[in-house]
Amino acid sequence: MDPGASIRTAQIIAVGSELLGTVRVDTNSLYLAGRLGGLGIELRAKSVVGDSRDELARLFRDAYGRADLVILTGGLGPTDDDVTRDAVADVLGLELREDPALVEQIEARFASRGLRMPAVNRKQALVPAGAEVLPNPLGSAPGLLLAGGGKLAVLLPGPPRELQAMFERLVEPRLRARTARAGLYRASLYITGQSESHVEEIAQPLYSKWRTAALPIETTILAAPGQIELHLCARSEDPDSAPRVLAEARDQLARALGAGVFSIDGRTMEEVVGELLRERAMTIAVAESCTGGLLQSRLTDIPGSSAWVAGGVVAYSNAAKVLFAGVPPGLIEHHGAVSEPVASALADGIRARLESNIGVGITGVAGPSGGSAAKPVGTVAIAIAGPEDSRLVRTVRLYGGRTQIKFSATQAALDMVRRRLLAQ
Amino acid sequence: MDPGASIRTAQIIAVGSELLGTVRVDTNSLYLAGRLGGLGIELRAKSVVGDSRDELARLFRDAYGRADLVILTGGLGPTDDDVTRDAVADVLGLELREDPALVEQIEARFASRGLRMPAVNRKQALVPAGAEVLPNPLGSAPGLLLAGGGKLAVLLPGPPRELQAMFERLVEPRLRARTARAGLYRASLYITGQSESHVEEIAQPLYSKWRTAALPIETTILAAPGQIELHLCARSEDPDSAPRVLAEARDQLARALGAGVFSIDGRTMEEVVGELLRERAMTIAVAESCTGGLLQSRLTDIPGSSAWVAGGVVAYSNAAKVLFAGVPPGLIEHHGAVSEPVASALADGIRARLESNIGVGITGVAGPSGGSAAKPVGTVAIAIAGPEDSRLVRTVRLYGGRTQIKFSATQAALDMVRRRLLAQ
Repeated sequence: MDPGASIRTAQIIAVGSELLGTVRVDTNSLYLAGRLGGLGIELRAKSVVGDSRDELARLFRDAYGRADLVILTGGLGPTDDDVTRDAVADVLGLELREDPALVEQIEARFASRGLRMPAVNRKQALVPAGAEVLPNPLGSAPGLLLAGGGKLAVLLPGPPRELQAMFERLVEPRLRARTARAGLYRASLYITGQSESHVEEIAQPLYSKWRTAALPIETTILAAPGQIELHLCARSEDPDSAPRVLAEARDQLARALGAGVFSIDGRTMEEVVGELLRERAMTIAVAESCTGGLLQSRLTDIPGSSAWVAGGVVAYSNAAKVLFAGVPPGLIEHHGAVSEPVASALADGIRARLESNIGVGITGVAGPSGGSAAKPVGTVAIAIAGPEDSRLVRTVRLYGGRTQIKFSATQAALDMVRRRLLAQ
Repeated sequence: MDPGASIRTAQIIAVGSELLGTVRVDTNSLYLAGRLGGLGIELRAKSVVGDSRDELARLFRDAYGRADLVILTGGLGPTDDDVTRDAVADVLGLELREDPALVEQIEARFASRGLRMPAVNRKQALVPAGAEVLPNPLGSAPGLLLAGGGKLAVLLPGPPRELQAMFERLVEPRLRARTARAGLYRASLYITGQSESHVEEIAQPLYSKWRTAALPIETTILAAPGQIELHLCARSEDPDSAPRVLAEARDQLARALGAGVFSIDGRTMEEVVGELLRERAMTIAVAESCTGGLLQSRLTDIPGSSAWVAGGVVAYSNAAKVLFAGVPPGLIEHHGAVSEPVASALADGIRARLESNIGVGITGVAGPSGGSAAKPVGTVAIAIAGPEDSRLVRTVRLYGGRTQIKFSATQAALDMVRRRLLAQ
């Protein structure tokens, strides 16, 4: 190892044809991203490659030329399609030799289960010249660590439990000794009811200055269903000032973006609303039509929500609107089921029947059919009754497919409840 | 384009710093892997890179040198950190020019929502010289297609809905004209109420023979929340016999696995149950407690579900159970809220009130608190009342966190409804 060179950047390569299909994703890289971030090592890119020795060798060569640290996961098993050892040895020009101590360990592992070691498992005892063996206490595939030219290559088995145990016990201490002191710090804001470009227009003049500040801050804008996310990230050797500078930047953005910012600590909208209700010892009841139960399901995803969720109804049919929320049939005939008066009557009715502080009524057109020129797919009327005599009614126009419209409608309703509670 | 060269291999690059963190995974590549497989195009590798123009340019240069087709997803937005257009133009040495027709389209899109186009969105009208613009009917970021030297680069926006619509309408027809004949064929089975190892024990003797059959079939078993999936896959140049052989294999597995197989055509449980109800012109009503509206939300995720979902209640509190489903208060006191008699009363009560053919009652402990020695977290009582005088009551013991228990409980309830309808 070259003890002087410090490790600043990393790349991850996950090996396995099953990770190139339609179902499985490489989740090890999510875990590793978190551990690397904690060490102040920047993950520059990650890749997935099938069980092809040539393809893997090319990718590894490229990654090893660019990043200080390359972590390869998977492909260390005993079978023909396990090619990681060979590909890495190819690229680094190292000979593979059988390690007798390793053969013994693998044999002992099988013997402890009353089995003899299958011949194929001998392959797992092959070690590139000069490599350090990382014992695997939970599986038969040992890991490998190769150092040279100020760079590090780490080979770990694919099963998450084995990989994580080995990373934390064996790899992290070695990395810690070779990382700069700088840690990676993060802050984030979640905004609803505004478009990505609108957020960008307000945020860009602020964060463009921070890129070149004394402590540079990188900002990423992300559009997710029902919300826009702003992620701030800074690298610093000072564990005191960095979080403070980031928090100041975050708060400055929050002030500029106004009431649409619903979370500055990673909490979801339903967590934020649940917490506001809990603090005020208030309860909420819901009569929802087009969202079909999703609003109540989101509210009850939060542990302890039985303290503030009174329950409610899915008033999908007009009969259910009348029966469970006491909506006057004449109101539906006169204004149509998708209308602000009906949303109000749903909110009032469910609030009165469940004696809750707040009642929510939602009625709309989730599509794909059922729209009209006056009320196209995505038209949703939302009413909030309470607390006390307050009332809020809005009609929103939402976009996307059926499930996206359902989600966005629940997000708009939760945001109306949030603002109403904050205004108290 | 070079019309002679055929497209055999592909690589995917997902662009976005948020995909290098600890939470988000690139799911577009799973979708694209499936579509490419259907075209007989082999996905060789996939990568994720942050919003760095240089890093992306290096990865793209490497991928474009190796694969016939490179698909880049994301990074086509209007903001500073959207770098895909620039990086690809850098590598291919193409000048970016503003396309006036595109500016007009983006302006019109904003105008249709009563908004003016923010200045930053002009960036989305920049087109590399010689590129074909792929219109995006669902978002403001157009895609781009660049052809040359027998290769193809396709740039698509990151939001899955936009990407999928554009891939199927605009990209797939172009690829189909340039692919070899051998296609990838798939079949799948979805099983509920059985463990992964149980399914494996029954399925393994069958599929192990198919690996070496005249048309070899690869089988993957996957455990997902509430279900086990078996995916069969074969590659063949014969578009007639391959689907037949796969269908035979799938049906053989379905017979061996029995009534737990709920789908052999990719439909979800809520689609299967919705279709059974639609065929029988029956309606369903739900009174759910611990699942908090999720069962009704799943039922109403299906377009047209207003024909068979009568609605229902989230009877989260005991008061709501009494008020909306007529559960006798004495029954709750005597047996406890989480009990088969209360589940039955919920099912009967909601069925009677909404005059539906089927009533479902669910009551349980979703956790993390609220469990007891007799009724630990994960205990859920489920009752199905109807059609006619039939009745089914079960208590299940589910595992996992709060949202997983909620989901598994709705899956068990839907499966009970499915079996009841099939037994008719």
